[in-house]
Amino acid sequence: MKNYKVTVEYDGTQFYGWQIQKRGRTVQGVIEESLSKLTQEPIKIFGSGRTDTGVHAYGQVFHVFISKDMTVEKLLIGSNALLPKDVSILAFEEVPFTFDARKSAKRKTYVYQFYESPFPRTFLDAYALRLRSGCDLEKMKSASELFVGTHDFGAYQAVGSTATNTVRTIYGVKWYKREACWCMEVEGNGFLYHMVRNMVGILLHIGRDKLKPSAITQSFDHRTRSQLPPTAPAHGLYLKKVVYAEVDVDTRGEVV
Amino acid sequence: MKNYKVTVEYDGTQFYGWQIQKRGRTVQGVIEESLSKLTQEPIKIFGSGRTDTGVHAYGQVFHVFISKDMTVEKLLIGSNALLPKDVSILAFEEVPFTFDARKSAKRKTYVYQFYESPFPRTFLDAYALRLRSGCDLEKMKSASELFVGTHDFGAYQAVGSTATNTVRTIYGVKWYKREACWCMEVEGNGFLYHMVRNMVGILLHIGRDKLKPSAITQSFDHRTRSQLPPTAPAHGLYLKKVVYAEVDVDTRGEVV
Repeated sequence: MKNYKVTVEYDGTQFYGWQIQKRGRTVQGVIEESLSKLTQEPIKIFGSGRTDTGVHAYGQVFHVFISKDMTVEKLLIGSNALLPKDVSILAFEEVPFTFDARKSAKRKTYVYQFYESPFPRTFLDAYALRLRSGCDLEKMKSASELFVGTHDFGAYQAVGSTATNTVRTIYGVKWYKREACWCMEVEGNGFLYHMVRNMVGILLHIGRDKLKPSAITQSFDHRTRSQLPPTAPAHGLYLKKVVYAEVDVDTRGEVV
Repeated sequence: MKNYKVTVEYDGTQFYGWQIQKRGRTVQGVIEESLSKLTQEPIKIFGSGRTDTGVHAYGQVFHVFISKDMTVEKLLIGSNALLPKDVSILAFEEVPFTFDARKSAKRKTYVYQFYESPFPRTFLDAYALRLRSGCDLEKMKSASELFVGTHDFGAYQAVGSTATNTVRTIYGVKWYKREACWCMEVEGNGFLYHMVRNMVGILLHIGRDKLKPSAITQSFDHRTRSQLPPTAPAHGLYLKKVVYAEVDVDTRGEVV
């Protein structure tokens, strides 16, 4: 038996998120099914974390134990031949048994995509949040700097979440253009459930002059979501990469 | 009644091409239906040319006569509200009655997208042709220069096509990277049915060392398709823009 670190991309549109559940198609479910078929053994995969219904990934990571003796090349080609078209495995790497996709993760990067248009655009609308006029991106960009640092993000955690330590460190927020989209890229040591989407939610209120940027600073003293704006939609969000101590997984280096 | 020049983008995946037909969903069909619903009058649209089943467009152009008195802003917002998500109208412009989307066109630009991977990639595979190893892009790039100029493209016309004058001028072929894709952009004064896909077909054979680049020069003396390689798939092809005497329609200037 070997332990493999596996990097995967997926279009979240047609999935009920990452984690296997009784009803609905999940990313974990289709991957386990494909790898079981390929290796002819029962397979369970362990993700770096869940992604929600509708959230995409360019570089999600999981680990998996496989007994069958196959080269990483054969695992890569064989699994992709069995996977549906909205999931691609990008790399298999053999790693020590101490590697755990969740516990060994040091940093994660998420990207949230926006585009500005008075009407939905065909090639963008499933992958970026449309901003109508009256939402000032410059205000959002400037306010997003306030997230950088170590803060209590308790107010950004979904209602009903169970994390007790809600302090997280955001290493940086950067904005860049990707064709017609504006991308907000956030790197941190970890993210609470719904945290990025709730960060985007407050930024949208700031962009629309419904809140002042100081609301972000104040939010770090709240402990509940109730005073904050609604969670932004899932379809603009991508898990871009997961960084481990030794290996830097970035499958789309040319985008940044 | 007014005449409008309309620019439209579409994802060709779910369409049986541009032109209305008895069976199957077409781009022309869904646009005429939406505009009829919006204006409450019978609508017929006239494209700059057809695109095939599966071919995409960033900047197709059509003209349409509309009697109902509406501002271009209301036409734009109203039509997009009624269109399915795989078609977006990008602009309505009032033009003289002499404007004809097909006859007034001076130049067209098509883009064909490629990506290199040993397995299909989730975010690319519906929009770019996957090249396996053993296909040399540099050879394709260099050979593509041979298309530039005024030539008889009769051998690049689909079997059964009726065009009698098969001489066309290619003004230029350029290649550029768009994230993980290589794009071949071809500008010409007009294109025969299947012409770009057949140009790509011969380039693929050259990239795989099945033909020498001189096959392109020789092909201009053929008058039939039979000696040339198969037509490349539709899903890598985009109608990017149509240029008219006065107005330059380029909706994605940032890509070039």
